[in-house]
Amino acid sequence: MINEQLLNPQSIVVVGGSDDVQKPGGKVLKNLIDGDFKGELFVANPKLDEVQGIKSFKDPKDLPNVDLAILAIAAKFCPSTIKFLAEERNTRAFIILSAGFSEENEEGAKLEQEIVDTVNSVGGSLIGPNCVGVLNSNYNGVFTTPIPSLDPKGCDFISGSGATAVFIMESGVPKGLSFSSVYSVGNSAQMGVEEILKYLDESFDPETSSKVKLLYVENIDKPEMLLKHASSLIRKGCKIAAVKSGSSEAGSRAASSHTGALASSDVAVDALFKKAGIVRCSGREELATVASIFMHPELEGKNIAVITHAGGPAVMLTDALSNNGLDVPHIEGPKADALLEKLYPGSSVSNPIDFLATGTAQQLGDIIDACDKDFDNIDAMAVIFGSPGLFPVYDVYDLLHEKMKECKKPIYPILPSVINVKDEIEHFLAKGRINFPDEVVFGNALAKVFNTPKPQPEEIEMPDVDVAGIRKIVDEAENGYLSPEQIHALLDAAGIARAKEGVADTEEEVVALAKEIGFPLVMKVVGPVHKSDVGGVTLNVKDEETVRSEFKRMMQIKDTYAVMLAQMLSGTEVFIGSKREEKFGHMVLCGLGGIFIEVLKDVKASLAPISTEEAHEMIQGLNSYGIIKGVRGQEPVNEDRFAEAVTRVAALMKIAPEIFEMDLNPLLGNKDAVTAVDARIRIEKE
Amino acid sequence: MINEQLLNPQSIVVVGGSDDVQKPGGKVLKNLIDGDFKGELFVANPKLDEVQGIKSFKDPKDLPNVDLAILAIAAKFCPSTIKFLAEERNTRAFIILSAGFSEENEEGAKLEQEIVDTVNSVGGSLIGPNCVGVLNSNYNGVFTTPIPSLDPKGCDFISGSGATAVFIMESGVPKGLSFSSVYSVGNSAQMGVEEILKYLDESFDPETSSKVKLLYVENIDKPEMLLKHASSLIRKGCKIAAVKSGSSEAGSRAASSHTGALASSDVAVDALFKKAGIVRCSGREELATVASIFMHPELEGKNIAVITHAGGPAVMLTDALSNNGLDVPHIEGPKADALLEKLYPGSSVSNPIDFLATGTAQQLGDIIDACDKDFDNIDAMAVIFGSPGLFPVYDVYDLLHEKMKECKKPIYPILPSVINVKDEIEHFLAKGRINFPDEVVFGNALAKVFNTPKPQPEEIEMPDVDVAGIRKIVDEAENGYLSPEQIHALLDAAGIARAKEGVADTEEEVVALAKEIGFPLVMKVVGPVHKSDVGGVTLNVKDEETVRSEFKRMMQIKDTYAVMLAQMLSGTEVFIGSKREEKFGHMVLCGLGGIFIEVLKDVKASLAPISTEEAHEMIQGLNSYGIIKGVRGQEPVNEDRFAEAVTRVAALMKIAPEIFEMDLNPLLGNKDAVTAVDARIRIEKE
Repeated sequence: MINEQLLNPQSIVVVGGSDDVQKPGGKVLKNLIDGDFKGELFVANPKLDEVQGIKSFKDPKDLPNVDLAILAIAAKFCPSTIKFLAEERNTRAFIILSAGFSEENEEGAKLEQEIVDTVNSVGGSLIGPNCVGVLNSNYNGVFTTPIPSLDPKGCDFISGSGATAVFIMESGVPKGLSFSSVYSVGNSAQMGVEEILKYLDESFDPETSSKVKLLYVENIDKPEMLLKHASSLIRKGCKIAAVKSGSSEAGSRAASSHTGALASSDVAVDALFKKAGIVRCSGREELATVASIFMHPELEGKNIAVITHAGGPAVMLTDALSNNGLDVPHIEGPKADALLEKLYPGSSVSNPIDFLATGTAQQLGDIIDACDKDFDNIDAMAVIFGSPGLFPVYDVYDLLHEKMKECKKPIYPILPSVINVKDEIEHFLAKGRINFPDEVVFGNALAKVFNTPKPQPEEIEMPDVDVAGIRKIVDEAENGYLSPEQIHALLDAAGIARAKEGVADTEEEVVALAKEIGFPLVMKVVGPVHKSDVGGVTLNVKDEETVRSEFKRMMQIKDTYAVMLAQMLSGTEVFIGSKREEKFGHMVLCGLGGIFIEVLKDVKASLAPISTEEAHEMIQGLNSYGIIKGVRGQEPVNEDRFAEAVTRVAALMKIAPEIFEMDLNPLLGNKDAVTAVDARIRIEKE
Repeated sequence: MINEQLLNPQSIVVVGGSDDVQKPGGKVLKNLIDGDFKGELFVANPKLDEVQGIKSFKDPKDLPNVDLAILAIAAKFCPSTIKFLAEERNTRAFIILSAGFSEENEEGAKLEQEIVDTVNSVGGSLIGPNCVGVLNSNYNGVFTTPIPSLDPKGCDFISGSGATAVFIMESGVPKGLSFSSVYSVGNSAQMGVEEILKYLDESFDPETSSKVKLLYVENIDKPEMLLKHASSLIRKGCKIAAVKSGSSEAGSRAASSHTGALASSDVAVDALFKKAGIVRCSGREELATVASIFMHPELEGKNIAVITHAGGPAVMLTDALSNNGLDVPHIEGPKADALLEKLYPGSSVSNPIDFLATGTAQQLGDIIDACDKDFDNIDAMAVIFGSPGLFPVYDVYDLLHEKMKECKKPIYPILPSVINVKDEIEHFLAKGRINFPDEVVFGNALAKVFNTPKPQPEEIEMPDVDVAGIRKIVDEAENGYLSPEQIHALLDAAGIARAKEGVADTEEEVVALAKEIGFPLVMKVVGPVHKSDVGGVTLNVKDEETVRSEFKRMMQIKDTYAVMLAQMLSGTEVFIGSKREEKFGHMVLCGLGGIFIEVLKDVKASLAPISTEEAHEMIQGLNSYGIIKGVRGQEPVNEDRFAEAVTRVAALMKIAPEIFEMDLNPLLGNKDAVTAVDARIRIEKE
């Protein structure tokens, strides 16, 4: 558990602190000193009385009580030091920078467990081992650089990899990205990314807490915890972006060689992030760009004004936005004409708003004001302003800064001239602003943010199903595939429509059954192996009379001892499947059947439980959705019934998690109903 | 035409040169002086005798003969100055920086035409107007910064937008990208991007010319010229990357407001680039990254070794490569074991090769040597090496530089610590090396380069078609849709299989026709409007006897005066279409029919003519290709016949460019044949 001693220690000891700033123990001490740590600072070093001007204790036993210990000593010395500090010096927070624990071998894993037990026994916090440390506005407890600019409203950043945390900061810092806190969790012995996120959720204060969280994770150990707290934070107004690496099969091999843990299936990760409302990024550059977007006011609509003094980047940005579902709408009317009057001849306000290479700061101000106040079809502005290197542009960037303070609508600054007006950009960033140096990288990231769905509600209303009925069938079932009777009973208990069928061996029974199933129906002999060959299958039976005559005829066929009746269905083949994913629970997939699954792999996935709304989003997200809506005069699939079936399958999985795999393939969907005609269900009790 | 005076002038006059380096005339002069121009340099300025230490002529009439004039004076003064210099001072090359020409209004367009006429009359070169200038190793004829490092083996860069050229250099320069020449074509009055590329092709010298060309274009005026010379250059061993902006509808609006020209349809652009072998990029960052990849030896295969001292970036890079069709193959065996021996405990060589945060330059050298010499399943190496900021890494980057000189396989340096080891990276770049700061941006770009097909051959062998027959039909046709008879004749002349059909009104004729068409066939009455309602359609007629009896029956039906016979076909619906695109010629599209076109928009396009190989590439690139191959026991479509039909449609378009649109929808494809059953052809003679 995170505690006050970790977040805001009154005293810190660097165990293994030295004068060599090329070593972690020396560098973390230097960072603490450079960061002007306000509390008491000590060093434990067996050889020195003073290190970098700080009092050092040769024997840790001489140390006073201390809140936080940062350890940079060999792994084998850590357990005893921690035990002493925890039990004798009231130390309640530990950051272990050292490697040589569970990531290395069995022996290291034992040392690690010993430490966790000690820290837990006193209710302490442990970060690491094998990490770069912790950084917040109270202290620079990392052994790495750069130390980004710290701001309570900057990003809270949690990383499962220390080096990657450094490289992500190196991507973000030049753009002006600021941080509120950085946690490198290393081996996550006591606390991993999930636990820290949980803490950030539970301690969230709408007034003082940062609203932007960034995650770098290589494996998700506690998906349920991540989902719960990520979506909770987002519901409280936060924004979360994450890189989950190891998305490819080869990438997973890399991840597992790196962390000693198996990577989770990537589809489940995608489904989890989508459900939580997390913006999934594929790399550092994208994460830093999305984080930079998060630091601006929220984009409330999809209409962007592209404001520029140079055509090319405006065209490329317009392409990036338009090709990803955002709009650069046409601007016209008297207010547009009035704006055009204020610009030099040759300018255009139709959007992109191009005020030419000769455009002034004053004109940019007029454009921004018009976009903010006059143009109702504009939700945000992207301002592109670089320089060919002729004269300084401080006036333009100063104006931009002022307008960003005043305007209601978000303004995104795209300042491409990172060489020609380097000083002006630095001056702009020094005011706490952020630059997006590449318009296409920005445009793609903005679309990604806008297109990420809101988190699903915390409480998902489950469809009405027969819980007791489901539990009885599953409790009595053995591992393996269920029988047709069990499947029918389970589908009926879950309220999933299935093709009605039954078997009868007397004329009265067969007529009663036919009435129950309804017409038209199919009749098949029971007994003979090759039913069609012996004339034992009759399709499209439409009335009682035919049922009687066909029954009599069929019972004469050799080996026939009964007749099966089944509903005769027509419609489009659709598909619903579910699979249990280690730790993640059940993924539910849906799509069209047949070639759409096999060739086009056109499916959408989510994690159970699934709300009606989410089921519709899944269906509407299919590439083949047009077929479900009905195309070329073909009958549509009843989307409400299809969505309901998805929610019912998801509910079934929550009630019967012993189901390992389930396929409804196909269901036949028409304008009235979506009915399962074939199903496979496999039970795997753990 | 580009001439020697433009490329390597012995003397230059800056008309409008001044002491104000915040103005183009002053700045271009400063750049020429700073670039240490070796020839004679003059200024024409009505007020001064000396400008920036350079002799200035108040009256241009006093100027000596001069090779190249760079003009930075008001548009209206340009024509007379150019006329004088061209006719009286033997000036044969002109660069007009000034704006106020065709991009502004009709009057400007006239001035521009006047200048072009003058320059053409003396066989001179003209760049601009409305451009930032020209830059090569002989002179810095641009008014902008940055001036990139110039190297005969650097990129030749041609830009349709001056500001964008500047911003693209600002993206590339920090990565270490060098340039051989930069041409900003402005309004392209005499020479546009296409003409310059033509020159680079025609003057290409395998020994001395740069092998990398970069283009930024907003509209393609001469697609055929671009295709011809781009593919020719690539066949000579060059690599070309281009941004063609205006790919979205909204982007096209932006482009046309910027350049006064309509953007070409984007599908045609894609098809053109693919055919030429140009790597299409969507923005500056991507263009600079692809260009940086081009500056390395060519990647010969898809197997990449990811070498790293930090796990995270290696996992992200592995994801980016694997998700885009490249491989990070497993490395194992005795040589891998021997390499592992040389690394610190905990390292991994299975690929990614992780030699840990503590890994040394020596170890990196061992790894690179093993990848180059020992591991046959490796085609290239990506080396990720950053720094947490503890100590310098000059030794590592020096070693990397040396290994890059020695190794046969390409080595891509990914140096993420742009802050922590800024000096070391600059030191590395100063040796002429390039850095890829973000591994995912690099990985995506590498895959894009690798996945771009080679250019199509210059001479495409056309299928054997009846040219005279085609010409006769088209010459005789009027604008509008062709009649069924004309369509049949045209398809037959082009050798495109179609469903056989015919009409007969006597029993003997109908029998002869039936034998010609072959069984099974369909018979339909000719005369009655609602053929089915009167019993006038018979499917699946299998023998002569039925033909006779059905003919007799049908001729009795009211209003019937003849009977139509048609081949009865079965198979999968496929589609081939063609459309004439202004300037580009004809695009030919193919795909599966029905919902695959309408809902999934799963088509591939190319420009006519199309080779058999390219037609197969189109078909194999379809998402639904699995269906053509045959799936779930369904009959496949004969891919050879499908491809042949594509090449025949393309050939038809080359022979009859008057065809504006043509749809074969559907063709029915089975294992034996692909046969058109419905066709629409529209003629639009210009």
